Amino acid sequence: MSEVHGYTDVEKQRVLLNDHQERHFMSSDVVRDVIIGVSDGLTVPFALAAGLSGADVPSSIILVAGIAEVAAGSISMGLGGYLAAKSEADHYERELKREQQEIITVPDIEAAEVADILAQYGAEPHEYGPVVSALQRNPRAWVDFMMKFELGLEKPDPKRALWSALTIALSYIVGGMVPLVPYMAIPMASHAVGASVALTLVALLVFGFVKGHYTGNQPFKSALQTALIGAVASAAAYSIAKVVKP
Amino acid sequence: MSEVHGYTDVEKQRVLLNDHQERHFMSSDVVRDVIIGVSDGLTVPFALAAGLSGADVPSSIILVAGIAEVAAGSISMGLGGYLAAKSEADHYERELKREQQEIITVPDIEAAEVADILAQYGAEPHEYGPVVSALQRNPRAWVDFMMKFELGLEKPDPKRALWSALTIALSYIVGGMVPLVPYMAIPMASHAVGASVALTLVALLVFGFVKGHYTGNQPFKSALQTALIGAVASAAAYSIAKVVKP
Repeated sequence: MSEVHGYTDVEKQRVLLNDHQERHFMSSDVVRDVIIGVSDGLTVPFALAAGLSGADVPSSIILVAGIAEVAAGSISMGLGGYLAAKSEADHYERELKREQQEIITVPDIEAAEVADILAQYGAEPHEYGPVVSALQRNPRAWVDFMMKFELGLEKPDPKRALWSALTIALSYIVGGMVPLVPYMAIPMASHAVGASVALTLVALLVFGFVKGHYTGNQPFKSALQTALIGAVASAAAYSIAKVVKP
Repeated sequence: MSEVHGYTDVEKQRVLLNDHQERHFMSSDVVRDVIIGVSDGLTVPFALAAGLSGADVPSSIILVAGIAEVAAGSISMGLGGYLAAKSEADHYERELKREQQEIITVPDIEAAEVADILAQYGAEPHEYGPVVSALQRNPRAWVDFMMKFELGLEKPDPKRALWSALTIALSYIVGGMVPLVPYMAIPMASHAVGASVALTLVALLVFGFVKGHYTGNQPFKSALQTALIGAVASAAAYSIAKVVKP
């Protein structure tokens, strides 16, 4: 029983945990939102502008189309993200109420579910039994346990929906303006497109590198992949616009 | 000890679990991908086309811009989704290797982490101790436990990245073509825009209703919210295009 005894030593456990630097990478939610917004913002307005250049549309109209796209895209992504986060929070609340009811109305089934979860990790009934009993003593902890381990749901932060929406929308606007700058300065679309492609590819490479760094992926691979998406999307838009041009 | 004994009765536990119909809503991944693609596809090309109509651009150019946007958007979302899923899978593999190493190099710390997780749910050291020991006996289950309960990571399906990308891209194309149909039939953009708005708002309401049904939200609320995003995005694009029109 010596190993069991080892983990009754709460003091030792604290010291061990405090000494252990958590080295797992956890990308912050804000970084994720910025990445979502900038990725799409750099790619879609860029490809749209390049595509319209392929159809011999003047810079002035490309600029209007690009700005309209940035407005539509940032609102669609921001508002869409906001409502998705809200409905996720609603979903969490509904499931929470259901679990709260189930541990009252069908406690035996809920206890069996806890047992089943722990048994999946190779614990024997006499080993997980006491943990099941501990949860039965603490209905609040029991519900939390079911939410996380049975349903895999994390409690959403109520303030996050709004901030997430604004972060994504703003990042989309920032990313989306990069490829449009050359069309503001150069009236001939066939000249502006070259500058836009060069500027945006550099921006995609830099952004992909930074993204790789923050998400714990290889920065160079991430830079190339991000630029590749932009290049493929704009090449496709360019070819299609050439074919269907008025 | 009678309650502990209750959960040593594995047969009873099986029967209870089999009798219990799982009523929690789980949206399938395919449904989620279709929703992502159609939502954005119905909204952004729609708003772009409405915006360009506000700038007195002819239907033929609006159609080219819309089709270029659908091409760019579907590739950006599809390829972006594919690479995101791939990098998530890479992330999982890296963390898995790290956990596998940690239970060999710092087993005491990893055991203390398990203890800490179970203690958060109100279990006492003598209650969770045996579960910690059970995990120490089964290194593979121990690693799985850490991946899910410490890091909250689920093993990604290796085939999903590609299917998810194709589903999102195709859904974006289907959604994106709806608002463009009137511009194919009606040469005057100022006439086509009315038909496009009417057609797309109906499509957004229907789609929002179906989405609400499948995601376990109130269908009518979902229908109105989905149409609202489209309306706000297109109104913004329209106003901005009117201001910056060439």
